[in-house]
Amino acid sequence: MVKIPKSHPRYWSLYYREKIIEGMEKGMTAKAGLIAHGRGEAFDYLIGETTIEPAEKALKAAVAKLLLAEYPVISVNGNVAALVPKETIELAKALNAKLEINLFYRTEDRVKTIAEELRKHDPNVELLGINPTKRIPNLESERGKVDENGIWKADVVVVPLEDGDRTEALVAMGKFIITIDLNPLSRSARMADITIVDNIVRAYPRMIELAKEMKKLPKEELEKIVKEYNNGQILNEVLLHINSRLEKLSKEGVWRKKELST
Amino acid sequence: MVKIPKSHPRYWSLYYREKIIEGMEKGMTAKAGLIAHGRGEAFDYLIGETTIEPAEKALKAAVAKLLLAEYPVISVNGNVAALVPKETIELAKALNAKLEINLFYRTEDRVKTIAEELRKHDPNVELLGINPTKRIPNLESERGKVDENGIWKADVVVVPLEDGDRTEALVAMGKFIITIDLNPLSRSARMADITIVDNIVRAYPRMIELAKEMKKLPKEELEKIVKEYNNGQILNEVLLHINSRLEKLSKEGVWRKKELST
Repeated sequence: MVKIPKSHPRYWSLYYREKIIEGMEKGMTAKAGLIAHGRGEAFDYLIGETTIEPAEKALKAAVAKLLLAEYPVISVNGNVAALVPKETIELAKALNAKLEINLFYRTEDRVKTIAEELRKHDPNVELLGINPTKRIPNLESERGKVDENGIWKADVVVVPLEDGDRTEALVAMGKFIITIDLNPLSRSARMADITIVDNIVRAYPRMIELAKEMKKLPKEELEKIVKEYNNGQILNEVLLHINSRLEKLSKEGVWRKKELST
Repeated sequence: MVKIPKSHPRYWSLYYREKIIEGMEKGMTAKAGLIAHGRGEAFDYLIGETTIEPAEKALKAAVAKLLLAEYPVISVNGNVAALVPKETIELAKALNAKLEINLFYRTEDRVKTIAEELRKHDPNVELLGINPTKRIPNLESERGKVDENGIWKADVVVVPLEDGDRTEALVAMGKFIITIDLNPLSRSARMADITIVDNIVRAYPRMIELAKEMKKLPKEELEKIVKEYNNGQILNEVLLHINSRLEKLSKEGVWRKKELST
């Protein structure tokens, strides 16, 4: 891994960029996953590389819904395994959810490598999606494979960093879909029931915290949080957040500025 | 290469994504170049995947400056060679400029592969940067290498899809720097003398057209175009363009919308 000085103003962004490259070198992350990561970086930069208020509201609603779920499942792909392997396992435990390895560019080698990576963090972790026997309707072969005891059976599914076609197909199946996507305009962001516009490296640790706290809440209170949540409104708030930042920057001017204000 | 149906609404974006992956497989494009491409995709999406008015003004000023230059040089890196090899050669001819292969992640193998790719399009093309003997001050070893008869000697340099540190170091050397960068907030975009916020796959063909047309203009007219150009203003116009698009989208709402308006 390339060494980045900790003093670099964008240290964490560069650190996770290297993690994704490492993920590809290990055989977990697809080449297109690198490009997708770049798209995420751009949106994170626009957001200000911080968990913004509408994302915090979406995180709370997501955790409430997951705590109320009968059979929650968290999907893991090559980018997720490269960025947050440990947090993925912790989150599943905190929510009492199943983990399913589910890849857009599925190959048996990549599934195996991701499973090995997760087992480094917990040798006893239960992983679904190794031998999927069911298919999401309206998705061609490899892209539609799901585990009978995982996504197939789930009522609530977390699909982080997910392809738009798949998110849409899962919504069409009647699943309650929570996505984590830095692009508020992506098809996944637009189609999900709850869209967390945040970097997964911030979102997962925050969800783990929230799960531990909110576990203690009465069912009625969790239901109230879910009922009052409005995903369309949240997406608009994200767009307006980016907007007001760009407006401020254009007023201040950016040319020949060494640093940009947040 | 993955086959993409021509009917796909974002065909060209997916086509060039595959070109970049192909560039990496050939050994021209660095892994970090894939991530950089993703960042570009995100900004292009925000811009609307079209050459916007402020970019057109920057393109004209850039071509005017290049036609006036005494020793113009166009830099080529692994992403440029993957996306626009033919256009790079045509542009250099139209402007009577030198071409220099200049890589951030320089390895002799990558330089050789890029040279071979360019020579496929023109076996007699003159390529600098094969054995660079000079260094850009304040950049460490490999990243600072430039050709004595290329960037070192140039008065005007085109550095497309360039790293911010390098753009800044070249500006500090007193070169007139033209960059092409889809991110109007990147350090390259902020530091260059002329910043073309456009996709290189649209910008280079347009620059070739403009060079052929503007060659006929009197020197005074070209000088007037350069004199009246204001890069700070242009960057602000780009930010406001993105802004007004996001504002429109947030007013219309994006949740559960199958298509977004431009």
